[in-house]
This record gives sequence, C-alpha cells and structure tokens, in this order.
Amino acid sequence: MFKGAEILEKIRRERPLIHHITNSVTCGDCADITASIGALPVMAFALEEVEEMAEAASAAVINIGTLVPHQLEAMLKMGKKAGEKGIPVVFDPVGAGATAYRSKAALHLLKTIKPAIIKGNGAEIGSLAGVKGVKISGIQSITAGDPLEGAGRLLTALDYRAVVAVTGPVDVITDGKRVARVFNGHSLLPLVVGSGCMSASLAAAFAAVEKDYFQAAAAALAAMGVAGEIAAEKGITGPAEYKVRLLDALFHLNAQEFSSRARIEIR
Amino acid sequence: MFKGAEILEKIRRERPLIHHITNSVTCGDCADITASIGALPVMAFALEEVEEMAEAASAAVINIGTLVPHQLEAMLKMGKKAGEKGIPVVFDPVGAGATAYRSKAALHLLKTIKPAIIKGNGAEIGSLAGVKGVKISGIQSITAGDPLEGAGRLLTALDYRAVVAVTGPVDVITDGKRVARVFNGHSLLPLVVGSGCMSASLAAAFAAVEKDYFQAAAAALAAMGVAGEIAAEKGITGPAEYKVRLLDALFHLNAQEFSSRARIEIR
Amino acid sequence: MFKGAEILEKIRRERPLIHHITNSVTCGDCADITASIGALPVMAFALEEVEEMAEAASAAVINIGTLVPHQLEAMLKMGKKAGEKGIPVVFDPVGAGATAYRSKAALHLLKTIKPAIIKGNGAEIGSLAGVKGVKISGIQSITAGDPLEGAGRLLTALDYRAVVAVTGPVDVITDGKRVARVFNGHSLLPLVVGSGCMSASLAAAFAAVEKDYFQAAAAALAAMGVAGEIAAEKGITGPAEYKVRLLDALFHLNAQEFSSRARIEIR
Repeated sequence: MFKGAEILEKIRRERPLIHHITNSVTCGDCADITASIGALPVMAFALEEVEEMAEAASAAVINIGTLVPHQLEAMLKMGKKAGEKGIPVVFDPVGAGATAYRSKAALHLLKTIKPAIIKGNGAEIGSLAGVKGVKISGIQSITAGDPLEGAGRLLTALDYRAVVAVTGPVDVITDGKRVARVFNGHSLLPLVVGSGCMSASLAAAFAAVEKDYFQAAAAALAAMGVAGEIAAEKGITGPAEYKVRLLDALFHLNAQEFSSRARIEIR
Repeated sequence: MFKGAEILEKIRRERPLIHHITNSVTCGDCADITASIGALPVMAFALEEVEEMAEAASAAVINIGTLVPHQLEAMLKMGKKAGEKGIPVVFDPVGAGATAYRSKAALHLLKTIKPAIIKGNGAEIGSLAGVKGVKISGIQSITAGDPLEGAGRLLTALDYRAVVAVTGPVDVITDGKRVARVFNGHSLLPLVVGSGCMSASLAAAFAAVEKDYFQAAAAALAAMGVAGEIAAEKGITGPAEYKVRLLDALFHLNAQEFSSRARIEIR
Repeated sequence: MFKGAEILEKIRRERPLIHHITNSVTCGDCADITASIGALPVMAFALEEVEEMAEAASAAVINIGTLVPHQLEAMLKMGKKAGEKGIPVVFDPVGAGATAYRSKAALHLLKTIKPAIIKGNGAEIGSLAGVKGVKISGIQSITAGDPLEGAGRLLTALDYRAVVAVTGPVDVITDGKRVARVFNGHSLLPLVVGSGCMSASLAAAFAAVEKDYFQAAAAALAAMGVAGEIAAEKGITGPAEYKVRLLDALFHLNAQEFSSRARIEIR
C-alpha cells in the first residue's frame, strides 16, 4: 500500500523545517526543492548551532558532496543530537568510493549517526556495502552493480536500522523486509547535476511527517520521478530549463495527480 | 517624495561595486541580482583581503545565513573598515532568533559595525529588538509581530544610527523619523528561497549611490516589489521560473516604469 | 587548422572527469556547464582527498573567486599532483589585481603549479603580467589593456610553458607561437555573472581530451561564443533566462553546427 499522496498532503499542511548540512555546489538546489514540495529549508553549519537547529527541525540532511574535516565534525555533532531527539536524518554519501577520504568519512558517519534513510546511486551504495566491481567517476555512478545486493549488504552491516534508497533507471528502496521499485523518471533527470542531492532533500521532507521511513523514501523518489515526467511534457530546451520545470512541477504536484501517476511496486 | 527612479538611473550610470560576505546557499542569486540592477557584484571572504575589497567597493552586504566563526571574524573586520571609510553596509540577520548563536552573532555585529541599513523579515527584526511572541522556523518568519514596533525598538537600541527595513506583505522602512510602506509585491516572491537575501543586495546597490539610506532602502524594496509584479505577468510555471523572470524584470526596469508602478507611502 | 568539432566529439565519447577547486558563487554554474558539454564535474576541496580526486580526473580547474588560505593550500597540493601526473590544470585568476592578496596568491599559484591554460579577462591577465594602466573593479575588467601584450608578457614570465586565453569582445588565445582570435559571442554573455568561470570549466573539458592545449582553449572559447549566439536566437527575457539557454545550447551543440558557426582566426 503506497502512502505517497497522503504524506505529500501532510507536508503541505505542516510545513516541516528541514535542516541541511550539505555541499556548496547544489545547496541552492536543495533549498529550492525543499520549498517547492512545501517544506521549509534551512542550512546551518557552525558547530555552535547545528544541535539547536537540528532540534528545531523535523528532519535533517547530511550530504558529503564537498566534505572538509570541520564540516564532518558538525555533521557528527548534529547527527548525534538528531538521533537523541528522534529526528530522522537522511544521509547522502555523495562520491563515496571516489576517494579513500570520502569512503572512510561516509562509513564513520554511518556508524556514528544512525541515519533513518541512506540515499545514493548504485556505485555509492555498492561501494559502502563492499560490492565488488562497482565504479564511480567523481560523483557519477559508472558501474552500479545490483542495487538490491548493495542495499542488502549495507543493511546487514547496519543491523537493519535504516532504509536504503538506491537511485537509478529504476529506483530501489528497501528496509530489509519490504522492497519498493519506482518506475517513474525521465532520461534528463540524471543529467541535472543536483538531482541526486535534491532527492535526499525530498526524502527528508517526506520523512519529517511520516514515521514509516520506507514509505517516506519511496514516496520521495516517486515524487521526483513523477515531477521529472511532468517537467518534460512541455517542449524544453535541455537540462537547464528542465531543472526549472522540475522544481515547478513539484510545486504544483497535487495528491490526486501524484497517486494516479506514481508507478511503484511494493513487495 | 520618493527618489527611487533617480537612484535607479544613478546605479546604471555609475555601476557601483558591491562587496558581499554572505551565505553559500543564495550567494549566486545575490551576485545575479546585483548584476541585474546594473551594479557589479564581488564576494570576498578571506581575512587577508576583506578590508581592501570593502575599500574598493561603494557598498557592502553582510549576511549571516550560513555563518561560521571564521566568517564572523571577516565580517567584523570588513564592517569596521567600511565604517571608517563611510561605505554603507547592509546587514541581513538571516535566521536571527532561530538559534542562540545566530542571535548573539547578529547583536554583536550590530554593536560593532554600525550598518547603514538592517534588512530582515518580521521575526528576525522582532527577535533582535526583543519583541515578545515573534517566531521563526529556520529562516522563515512564522509570527512576525508588528514591523513598526520591531523596527522602532531596534532603532532605539541603536541610537537611531541606522535604517531598518522589514520585509513582509507590506514592507516597512523607517529611520525613526520617516516611515515608508511599500505595497508592491507578489505572493510568489516569499516562495523564492533567495528573495530576502537578494533584497539586501538591492538595498546595497541603491545605498551605494544615494546617501539618504532611508530613500535607498525604500527604493530597493519597491524595485523588488515592482519587478516581482512584472515577473508574474507572463504565464509562469511556478517559483523557479518566477525567479528567472524576476531577475530579468529588474534588468529591464527603467526609471519611468519604476516611477509609475511603485506604490509607496512615505510619512 | 581549427580542431574544435573533433575535440567536442571526443568529450561526448569519453566523458572525462573534471575536478574543480573553485569559488562558492558560481560552482553550481561550473558543474552545470561541465555536464552540458558532456563531461563529468566533481568538486572536492579537502586536503585529505584533492590529490586522489585529481589523479582520477582527466583535467582540473583552479578558480580563486572566493579564495581563503586553507583553500589555497588545497589548490597547491592538488595542482602539484596534477603536474606530476600530466593532468592539465586550467587556472582562472578571478579578481587578480583587485586586492594584494589575490594578486599574490595568483602569482604564487602560477609559479608553483604550472597550469596548462590560464584563462582570464583583460584586467586579470594584464595585472598578473604587470601591464600598466589595467583596471579591475571586483571581478569586472574595466580597463583591459591589449590582450596580446598581457598574454605575451605573462608567457615570457612563465617561460612559455602555458597557453594564455584572454576573454573579451574578441577572445585572444596564444601559446607564444600561435595566436587564435574568437569572434563568436553575444553582448549578453559578459552580463551572466558566471560566464567567465564557466569558460574555464569548458577549457578544462576540452583540455581533458586534447593534448594541444592551444587548440583546446581556442575550441572552448569558440564553443562558449557559438552557444552564446544560439542562446540569443529565441526571444529571451534577459540575462537570467539567457544563462539557461546558454547551457542548453551547449548541451545540443553538435560537431557540424560548431564547425560551421565558429568564427575563429588562427595565425
């Protein structure tokens, strides 16, 4: 039973605050998409305030896209506080597998902060899970491996205390018991540089108002995919205009359209 | 007597340099709007150069949206130098009231740097002024309080050595003697994540060429409101396309149209 | 003999990874344009990973637009490693000449990292070359000087071990033996805040697959100019929409159109 439409309506009603500690490349995109879906974005990085901001928020995003050590410290501090207070954290291990520093930092974060949802592309999740043969070029998944294998291994390592969401031509979301597959999307979506980071912000907005994080993550990726389809319906000039349309499609997405267009399979 | 059109023409003629120390989320938007109105944006954060950059500029912006301690140090250094040289500083206390760190840093900056214009939403200004009952969620004003009360109290605390501009459905600008109300604007404007930060950049561009900072601040918010109305006139898909149209409306805004469309009351 | 079309096709085939250490204002634009032309962008700033990321990349960009000391350290480390491994670095001395700190840092980088291509506006290159009378306001070239004089002097100081590309109404590219002039472009291009930074990303994408860096730099600026012309062909509302169209024009630019539209003179 897919609860996406219901969760979407709850976001619009409650306007949850989503705290981000994220990279400097796509942080504007993450703020934009958080507002588009109807939530309130905030970015705060100082050690002096990350705990207080997380406590005021309904969900948080940690994204290591341009990680530096002092930011890692803020992420750990914020993530621990969020854990104590039961505030769900979405972890986006951008570029895990591309350098030893990123992989190590990602694993350290995973051990320390207990995220509610881990969202990555096939190579990022596979690399964190120790799947052989996955390949990443910078932040781009080149050889993704089997998403369910990567997610399953990562969940085993984490004692099943998270939901893993693997983006790809078909998105795969699992908590170890249930598996959701999202068939929505568009070929332009992976060409938008910030689309992965934006998915994590959506996942946080959905998790902010829905305690079943498996449903929240599946709904977020389905919303991204549906909006990605709507964005391409009018004639567009390419990926740059497509990003504008994508944000605006999410802004206008209503529960009924979301329900009728979501192509999702849950087992 | 509203001097907006005249100031706008002066910006286009003189192309003043506007130095920003600002957040990493909307800094691109701030640069874009500064260029759109006809001024020259520059961002420089290093302690080693902020004084020299401020001296070369005609106005400066300080925005605490993603404040960290070393940036605060640069802001203080830059702001003091600007004060010595008579270069107006626009202070944007983004998120003041949301965490103790931000509130304290904002008050410390206010005491130390003597900004020409303080621009914030109702909750930010009210919170700095000690108005009871104002509420902010991240950077979003939830309960704004009476803008004139907040501005008045803040001016009292600062010995009336600044102009306070409070954005809202009706923008209120005051120097303690005069009060301007700007009735221009559009319901989509607050949905654009960077709109507040961009208003501060506009205020700096106007203050760079007009020593009456009350007039400069009122003109900047009126320009934002007028452009916000023009941006919505063509069919738009949502807030993301609206931001593009807003920037382009400012780029094309001419003195005559600005004069005839500004709905401003000065007492 | 202009090899632009051939290099463009090679970028699309090989999808080279382009590592950036760049400013926080236009980093999103740089990522977008790198993806638009068909390459893979990555930004990584931590001392712990810049060498590994550079080794994995096919070219790198160093841009001092919002330089701070710890970032300079990362640039030096990354640039040295790239040099050892024969990975071309494009250096963009944003704002050189505007403050002593920037000028000094730029000259220090030039001495230490041996960039393959140095791309700047007239005032930036002239200022690094010690040309008298050039003037910069923030990052904006005000008095550019003769681009060939600036480039020539800089090449002399660097023992001709680089290509210098000077952007302007006519772009000038030289390696000390050959001189290319690119006549493509549009009056809106310099009004796009990130256009200079984006040119450097393009230059890196072209240099990633073409060892003749003179040809690579000339092709990159020609691609920018041609896309800048295409972007203005449909009715546009101003510089903000123009940036979207520019990115999408690059995305769709094919070898044949590039060849037939490039107006370039090589001597």
